[in-house]
Amino acid sequence: MTEPKRGFEPAEFARRLARAQRMMTEAGFDALVFTTPHNIRWATGFESQFWESPTRPWFVVLPREGGPIAVIPEIAAPQMAATWVEDIRTWPSPRPADDGTALLAGVLEGLPRRFGRTGWELGREMALRMPVSQFLDLRGRLRGIDCADAGALIWAIRMVKTEAEIGHIRHICTIACDAYDRVPDLVHAGMTEREAARALRIELARLGADSTPFLPAIAGPGGVAQIVCGPNDRVIAPGDVLFFDTGSTFDGYWCDFDRNYAVGQIPDAALRAHEAMWRATEAGIAAARPGATTDDVHRAMAAIIDAAGSLGNNVGRLGHGLGMQLTEPPSHMPGDGTVLTEGMVLTIEPGIEYAPGRMIVHEENLVVRAGPPDLLTRRAPREMPRIG
Amino acid sequence: MTEPKRGFEPAEFARRLARAQRMMTEAGFDALVFTTPHNIRWATGFESQFWESPTRPWFVVLPREGGPIAVIPEIAAPQMAATWVEDIRTWPSPRPADDGTALLAGVLEGLPRRFGRTGWELGREMALRMPVSQFLDLRGRLRGIDCADAGALIWAIRMVKTEAEIGHIRHICTIACDAYDRVPDLVHAGMTEREAARALRIELARLGADSTPFLPAIAGPGGVAQIVCGPNDRVIAPGDVLFFDTGSTFDGYWCDFDRNYAVGQIPDAALRAHEAMWRATEAGIAAARPGATTDDVHRAMAAIIDAAGSLGNNVGRLGHGLGMQLTEPPSHMPGDGTVLTEGMVLTIEPGIEYAPGRMIVHEENLVVRAGPPDLLTRRAPREMPRIG
Repeated sequence: MTEPKRGFEPAEFARRLARAQRMMTEAGFDALVFTTPHNIRWATGFESQFWESPTRPWFVVLPREGGPIAVIPEIAAPQMAATWVEDIRTWPSPRPADDGTALLAGVLEGLPRRFGRTGWELGREMALRMPVSQFLDLRGRLRGIDCADAGALIWAIRMVKTEAEIGHIRHICTIACDAYDRVPDLVHAGMTEREAARALRIELARLGADSTPFLPAIAGPGGVAQIVCGPNDRVIAPGDVLFFDTGSTFDGYWCDFDRNYAVGQIPDAALRAHEAMWRATEAGIAAARPGATTDDVHRAMAAIIDAAGSLGNNVGRLGHGLGMQLTEPPSHMPGDGTVLTEGMVLTIEPGIEYAPGRMIVHEENLVVRAGPPDLLTRRAPREMPRIG
Repeated sequence: MTEPKRGFEPAEFARRLARAQRMMTEAGFDALVFTTPHNIRWATGFESQFWESPTRPWFVVLPREGGPIAVIPEIAAPQMAATWVEDIRTWPSPRPADDGTALLAGVLEGLPRRFGRTGWELGREMALRMPVSQFLDLRGRLRGIDCADAGALIWAIRMVKTEAEIGHIRHICTIACDAYDRVPDLVHAGMTEREAARALRIELARLGADSTPFLPAIAGPGGVAQIVCGPNDRVIAPGDVLFFDTGSTFDGYWCDFDRNYAVGQIPDAALRAHEAMWRATEAGIAAARPGATTDDVHRAMAAIIDAAGSLGNNVGRLGHGLGMQLTEPPSHMPGDGTVLTEGMVLTIEPGIEYAPGRMIVHEENLVVRAGPPDLLTRRAPREMPRIG
């Protein structure tokens, strides 16, 4: 497996910025202000694990014209200087009395004003990475500059991926496919969920994943009761369905897909539910065409899930966007209404609770193309693989 | 190495809540509202890797009297029901038109009112995990209930750890010590920083770390230029200092400490800087007594760092709090002014830039006790270990 080149060319960032600038002009913003790791990395290429420390706020301003302006703690200046960003302003952080507020206000006040409005990460499926009290203070201090919600615009910008981004997502999907293929060699009845998760975590690292922030490993008789917590200390037993899901990363891009394994002999009803979810996935993949909506993709899967005797679904949607985060907009659900376009990377994720507390969930990752979608994952086998 | 029991007893959570309730009464809050993974887990024990998905907001309300109230997406109800929390309200999320706002408003309006004020995660070193636009909408909707910043109170509550929490931190510190001890067997000149990081990442998982979100691995001739980014593709070469830092976790609790390795023969100036940082660490450890301030701890280290010929320091502090996050308040720095008390878990982290672009940074983790502090890490060797 050839690893894609890490990072992106300055020309790629310049194209991202130019597109963002066109879209922010249409939406009436003089600038976007990014505070979160994903948006800052998307715009600058700046990578750091130091985001785990909540101590210091960081800002990157994308003005409507000109290059990005990084307004960041001194501690990160050497590495920001290694990106394509040329305009870097720093302050000695932490500095409780003023952790970058005055410096950022000065930058925003110095920008050309056409709309009198800056766009911030205030909307759905996002959280501002700075103290809200600091944001409110800054907002109150700026004269003639509105600090508005640019959530919908930011997601519209990030929802369509470049070919270079798609190459990164494809690579981590391939690593996870290879790791899942090794599960029958690594995991067997008698191990705990936690031991199974550890074995897969080590295999993912060995095969080249940078990190594995998301790795539920859940086993239950004939299916699982939930899919978001675990692993726990439950011992994997014959008759179980073992459910693995992983969001692992390569160079800042995620996969997000699951696989199911039959532990010895499992009930026929579980095998039938698995077969139905395999067919629902096929229908979801087939529906993911440019011009279709996320509602259409949902409908294609829901018809098969309902026909298979679903008791309901507490997940609330049947897949979502994917890229620099485990989940991104849009959502395959009634009323979402997003029109698919080429370059969107999506998960197809049908699930069924075929009996109380017994869920089977499938998931694949794809990119929307002019014709049929381009699968980024190797399709799960139609028959559930068995482990001993 | 015996693994501590995962999770905590209901009695432990009840004690945490009772202390928080006393402190919120003193501070004049009718309730605290938590939206972030760490605070929610601290109060409830609820654990999930699903926090990686930014789609759904979550809320846990700690009223001034009575048990916690979880206001959460349906998808998480089965697992929240397995915690000590008895009052769980859910809505079908994602639901863009109202993602929990009305439900949460109803809960807050139903609480007994003494101060007319609820406390939120709005302050320093924290970021609200919900869309700010949703927060502002809720704040505008509540009549007679202020949504105020409770940042300082929340950090005061979390800053002092229980013995059970300390046991968890000690365990992950021991795992990381054992992994660092193996570095001379795992890493050698000719590997890239990235390969070195991968080897340590696998070793940490093998020894029992649940996850390793933070693992810079940086090599530079005689020292490193920065300590927050990397690993990169640099090939580790004789004459380098190889710097590893890790925040790894066990059951939701972090270690945060580093180690330095000499690759073959390194300059005498680097060895002298290392020796000075070892002594600065000793001084920092000795200063961490109840009644001392974080300024005192800083001063004890800074004297030795300055005497060793420091060119400056872009980190801005010489250590910090540690627990459910990689870094937590307080900060060892002038003006922080936090008075140390028993049960605080702290890092001692002196650093020096002894020549331009050549930094040496040390770090240990400890808990403040009535007498001398209790080291959670095995002290780094006074002489830098060598790798071939």
